[in-house]
Amino acid sequence: MSLIVMKFGGSSVGTTERMDRVAQRIIEKKLQGDSVVVVVSAMGDTTDELIDKASAINENPPAREMDMLLSTGEQISVALLSMAIHKLGHEARSYTGWQAGIVTEELHAKAKISDIDPARLFASLDAGNIVIVAGFQGMTADGEITTLGRGGSDTTAVALAAAIKADVCEIYTDVDGIYSTDPRVVVCARKLNVISYDEMLELAHLGAAVLHPRAVEYAKHYNVNLVVRSSFTHNEGTLVREDAEMEQGIVVRGIAVDKNVVRISVLGVEDVPGVLAKMFGALASNGIDVDIIVQSGVQDGKADFSFTVSLSDRGRAIEVLSSIKAEVPYREATYEENLAKVSIVGAGMVSNPGVAATMFEAISSVGVSINMVSTSEIRLSCVISAEPVKEVVRALHTAYGLDTTETAFVGGPKDRR
Amino acid sequence: MSLIVMKFGGSSVGTTERMDRVAQRIIEKKLQGDSVVVVVSAMGDTTDELIDKASAINENPPAREMDMLLSTGEQISVALLSMAIHKLGHEARSYTGWQAGIVTEELHAKAKISDIDPARLFASLDAGNIVIVAGFQGMTADGEITTLGRGGSDTTAVALAAAIKADVCEIYTDVDGIYSTDPRVVVCARKLNVISYDEMLELAHLGAAVLHPRAVEYAKHYNVNLVVRSSFTHNEGTLVREDAEMEQGIVVRGIAVDKNVVRISVLGVEDVPGVLAKMFGALASNGIDVDIIVQSGVQDGKADFSFTVSLSDRGRAIEVLSSIKAEVPYREATYEENLAKVSIVGAGMVSNPGVAATMFEAISSVGVSINMVSTSEIRLSCVISAEPVKEVVRALHTAYGLDTTETAFVGGPKDRR
Repeated sequence: MSLIVMKFGGSSVGTTERMDRVAQRIIEKKLQGDSVVVVVSAMGDTTDELIDKASAINENPPAREMDMLLSTGEQISVALLSMAIHKLGHEARSYTGWQAGIVTEELHAKAKISDIDPARLFASLDAGNIVIVAGFQGMTADGEITTLGRGGSDTTAVALAAAIKADVCEIYTDVDGIYSTDPRVVVCARKLNVISYDEMLELAHLGAAVLHPRAVEYAKHYNVNLVVRSSFTHNEGTLVREDAEMEQGIVVRGIAVDKNVVRISVLGVEDVPGVLAKMFGALASNGIDVDIIVQSGVQDGKADFSFTVSLSDRGRAIEVLSSIKAEVPYREATYEENLAKVSIVGAGMVSNPGVAATMFEAISSVGVSINMVSTSEIRLSCVISAEPVKEVVRALHTAYGLDTTETAFVGGPKDRR
Repeated sequence: MSLIVMKFGGSSVGTTERMDRVAQRIIEKKLQGDSVVVVVSAMGDTTDELIDKASAINENPPAREMDMLLSTGEQISVALLSMAIHKLGHEARSYTGWQAGIVTEELHAKAKISDIDPARLFASLDAGNIVIVAGFQGMTADGEITTLGRGGSDTTAVALAAAIKADVCEIYTDVDGIYSTDPRVVVCARKLNVISYDEMLELAHLGAAVLHPRAVEYAKHYNVNLVVRSSFTHNEGTLVREDAEMEQGIVVRGIAVDKNVVRISVLGVEDVPGVLAKMFGALASNGIDVDIIVQSGVQDGKADFSFTVSLSDRGRAIEVLSSIKAEVPYREATYEENLAKVSIVGAGMVSNPGVAATMFEAISSVGVSINMVSTSEIRLSCVISAEPVKEVVRALHTAYGLDTTETAFVGGPKDRR
């Protein structure tokens, strides 16, 4: 008999039929004798529809009122899921974020959870109910409704699991676990049985959209056992935990691709002290996230810099650079699109010095040149041209011994609809 | 400088354009220097759409979860209305029922308001905000979300007006006040400047759908000045208050028609003591509301009874009568449809003995016979055939001196769309 948190995303409850299937899934757990707390996101396109309604009235609505509006999406989901469970003859009670005792800091649209008082949920569990909590939302100490921002429902689930000391927090999604790489790119991608928090964080930041990095950080901090699994199959899924053993002979856990990348080059920058701090300080204070930074050698007292930003920040980055040209003199600023960042991730990399050489070899073996390189303790990223990225990923997958003979679950249900 | 509650119904905020117009209307008040608390219903068809979603999942959903679901309709309205006011450059804050301090008894789907703590609303008004409160909803002392049932938003507005001691509670609707009778039937219907609570209660119970009887009762109990007016024009509207002076020479305030009426006749009932109590007791305990009751004279120890019920209760009433035939022996039970109840209402009737005779004369003057009669202190109702009802109302309107030469506002905007 365990205490379990189950989290279902918006696409898992997007239709009446799917809602029914999720209700059955929850009841199966309950019938095993487990105590179940469920966290749900807004159904399908509900959030987008609410945003459209707001935009029609006010293009720049106050964040407080957006939270008031958007929090109804999850409230609708929890009420309907509770009704679906009742129809199947089981007792359930739905709760908003504030009813579930989720207290956040006073920041609208992207509040952080500051405290959870689980007394009411425990009382409801003790009464034999399946407990259903609206994800993505909470309340400030002053009684204002807040939302948690992107990835909010994952974070709600992990935070609740920590607060009630759940045995496991299961994240149900439309893929059946974390893969060594995107199975739509590499058919023989390997489903991972286990992965460490740090590895998962690197993969999540690199665009493996299954789990939000914030939820992984929360899980790591409170040491919550996370399982990522499919809401459509009963396959085992992937366990995310502190120490994850590597399989024999494998050093790299996974390969991720991020196509949301632009390289900006600033050429002929005067090489005086403080110039880098000024440039990147100005970018940061304008909310532009800079990823890889490369400086080439200095010639005649001038240096060339390159860095990457996301596609949506490109225009603003060039503007910021123009605006500081008086303080940070340079010859010209250019940008390059149609790039991709390919990354290998594995906790064992740090103690295996040949890993980087294998990556460079595999990339050059398919005739592709490397544009930029960056490393962390458990990650190695190369920026290359976007066009040959699938061949590169396949070559890397084979080079690191990740290929499996099992047929992978190719694509999510979105592809099969 | 006054403290004003303004209530807008679902059709007043049904589209973006209407929402904008309501926002402007509210800002006009604010610019006059008044403090404004606004109560809003769910937009247009939102509530029906939510009910459809629930029905698709569970035909008999738990009332608690329905309240959880339906309360989102008003939460969406208040957030959007606040955004519309912000766009026009004024400060507004939206509040759910529980945030507004509205405490109800522990009864889902038709809770009564048991207490209101207006501290948070006062603080928000003091900060210079336009305060917007979700109608139709509250919270129990245990933190469960409840809804107030039909007419709930009117009741929220009146209860808030009482709690904050507002100078007036304005109910905005799609007609511009209370009329002496339906202006679609009688072109020269008179818009009333003033009407008493009791008269309004009689008219509301008789199907004049502008104000819910529960809200009028609440207003009477707390002596709240109510104004019914149009959200589309700046006409003065009708004031509902304790003592309403009659115009010189006019005894009847208004004429109402109710077509939702069936006459049931029970013939040859054995005239023994307790037989009436058994019959009407059985009907009442099956939730059937009996209106007018008539007993004809007794012959050979047998009596004939007639009573009226609403159309939707007809079948069940006949069933209940069959089920008690052993205890209450009778020859047969029949029913008659295509009837209408025409009522005259006026606080001055009690001291004017000729009122009933005038009614009977007016009805017979258009060749219609009267089927049943019932009276209260301020009301006189006749059941007649439904077919000539418009002629009867016109004759009564003239007979009681209610005709005006002004052109009435014929029909609501629903007719003009």
